[in-house]
Amino acid sequence: MAEFSPGLEGVVAAQTAVSEVDGANGRLIYRGGYLIEDIAPSVTYEEVAYLLWQGDLPDGAQLDALRKQMAAARPLNKAARGALMSTDPATDPMDVLRTVASAQGSAKTMVKPSLDEAIALTAVFPTIIGAAHRRRLGRDIVEPRDDLSHAANLLWMMEGKEPGVERVHWLDTYLVLLADHGLNASTFAARVIASTGSDLTSCVVGAVGALKGAAHGGATLAARSMLDKIGSASNAEKWLREAHARHERFAGFGHRVYRTYDPRAKILREMARTAAPELHGTAARTEELALAILHEAHPERPNATNVDFWASVVLTGAGIPKEMFTCIFAASRVVGWTAHVLESLADLRIIRPASVWVGPEPGKKPAAIAKR
Amino acid sequence: MAEFSPGLEGVVAAQTAVSEVDGANGRLIYRGGYLIEDIAPSVTYEEVAYLLWQGDLPDGAQLDALRKQMAAARPLNKAARGALMSTDPATDPMDVLRTVASAQGSAKTMVKPSLDEAIALTAVFPTIIGAAHRRRLGRDIVEPRDDLSHAANLLWMMEGKEPGVERVHWLDTYLVLLADHGLNASTFAARVIASTGSDLTSCVVGAVGALKGAAHGGATLAARSMLDKIGSASNAEKWLREAHARHERFAGFGHRVYRTYDPRAKILREMARTAAPELHGTAARTEELALAILHEAHPERPNATNVDFWASVVLTGAGIPKEMFTCIFAASRVVGWTAHVLESLADLRIIRPASVWVGPEPGKKPAAIAKR
Repeated sequence: MAEFSPGLEGVVAAQTAVSEVDGANGRLIYRGGYLIEDIAPSVTYEEVAYLLWQGDLPDGAQLDALRKQMAAARPLNKAARGALMSTDPATDPMDVLRTVASAQGSAKTMVKPSLDEAIALTAVFPTIIGAAHRRRLGRDIVEPRDDLSHAANLLWMMEGKEPGVERVHWLDTYLVLLADHGLNASTFAARVIASTGSDLTSCVVGAVGALKGAAHGGATLAARSMLDKIGSASNAEKWLREAHARHERFAGFGHRVYRTYDPRAKILREMARTAAPELHGTAARTEELALAILHEAHPERPNATNVDFWASVVLTGAGIPKEMFTCIFAASRVVGWTAHVLESLADLRIIRPASVWVGPEPGKKPAAIAKR
Repeated sequence: MAEFSPGLEGVVAAQTAVSEVDGANGRLIYRGGYLIEDIAPSVTYEEVAYLLWQGDLPDGAQLDALRKQMAAARPLNKAARGALMSTDPATDPMDVLRTVASAQGSAKTMVKPSLDEAIALTAVFPTIIGAAHRRRLGRDIVEPRDDLSHAANLLWMMEGKEPGVERVHWLDTYLVLLADHGLNASTFAARVIASTGSDLTSCVVGAVGALKGAAHGGATLAARSMLDKIGSASNAEKWLREAHARHERFAGFGHRVYRTYDPRAKILREMARTAAPELHGTAARTEELALAILHEAHPERPNATNVDFWASVVLTGAGIPKEMFTCIFAASRVVGWTAHVLESLADLRIIRPASVWVGPEPGKKPAAIAKR
């Protein structure tokens, strides 16, 4: 039996061709061998979805067909609408997403995960997220539009007015960058669920639950909340020094896999200059100081900025309220979850690790039961 | 980096004192060091729940307090009731359980997993399952009763009439036996989700999805379906020989961990004599022949009967329709899921394994993007 490796760090749990995080060299590789920095400037989220599901970028006709299929799958069905309308409007939007996605994907019999269902679940996420947001605001739900892109639909259904092209571009780039990232915890949860022979909605719903945690999808909100507390570039040094003295962790720094600058953070940092100039200023100064303080305290660690830090700035620029950040992350990553599940079907084997017993020696307690 | 171990077989993913599957010796140990065969004859499901959550069996006052707390948590809340009533009555009951449990456990802000929530989720599972069953039958939902045990409530809410003590005893014993089983796939899914800092409902909902698979919770139904096809003890030899010739797997045989007879299967086999005498006859003959055929074909393998085989007979005797078997499994295992999550909080570390890239060499494709 192998040594116990907490968090399964360094334990290989899958072979995959969906994406690869080359942490040592700061590279993220998407299916087909594309480097994230090559792909991000020139493709849309729909194209990346096609790539991660199908293995290569679509031609014009393939992309058109995908767009049509997604448009048809955007409306909520009866079960989903009923579940949505029964939630308290103040419910955590990730809980709404978990429940309503579960309802939308319910079936009468067990259905093997399929590309069609992956497309349908991906298509409907912005509808659920938009509706959850509108209900929080006490406003009517806005139905999806067939003529808008995935990113534009997301903003449209949240706001009820057509978004400008720049904000759509920023959001679309974010969605492209976050679409997959190796065996992160939510993707791994989806693969564990798939490994029992379960259906795709079960995998995706489990992944939503995993993404919700503060150490995973919740980190983008944490980064933005820290920037809110800092408030301005001029206040950054004081705040960070005091937080460090309180042994507070800096949100948005450090990653299990990257040992150098996260390539997604680099792209988002650049985009943040135009997407959110003021917040960019605070964030840039915060980053500089945080890295210096961390390096001073732990020179042996890589201490790199992670994607959440700069994502929080770009999402702010794209007009996303911070309480919706984790949902927007889910709207991107659902493509990765489903692509991994579909890939895993080729060689399905139940994921059932071992454990080490740390309880008392067995079989010594029948007396305690007998005297009951 | 470690070797790739498909299904994480033999990889230690946690240290636990909740339960231990000692496969080599055919022992299942529950928290505190109790052997399953010592505990099963003398305790109820409520007592086992207390044991797995708290570390030891309850005294009279502790058990009474737990029963009261569970009784108070049995009714569906507004979100859960709305989600339930919006589902198509023919929906897979596991999908109903996944959606309605998600709705019931929704919250306005992130709540750290707690014992109170573990109790509440466990208490409400029979309510959801009973309601899903009643809706399938086109009948009114039956509300829970404060004066009935957990097992009796489950039958009461499914059937709308008070069940006899024998059937309650058989079901209760099943619930005790299946309450936890080391790092099985659904429990592991729950721990992966918990590892990100997510909430308990997210963990439980993900685990429901994992249990649904045919290689996990779905196996009990598969065993019963096989017995239905066999039909009688006299037909067993013909059916099994023909199925074996078709290279069909025998449902209810083989397990990743046990190398000898599953101790739970032993208890259920004995109970099945009185719970379902006729089906016991068919099952006993089927078991004898299946083991002989498997041993003939693969003498090097352990080929033991697993718990699903005899569970399917006992649940039949307890009056559970076979399409509800996986839900009843969930109603038992939810205690194990929540106990594992609560245990994992003491040393939370994100579960994020590594993967091996099997795609094309990275960075060779910018031309394909440029020419778009």
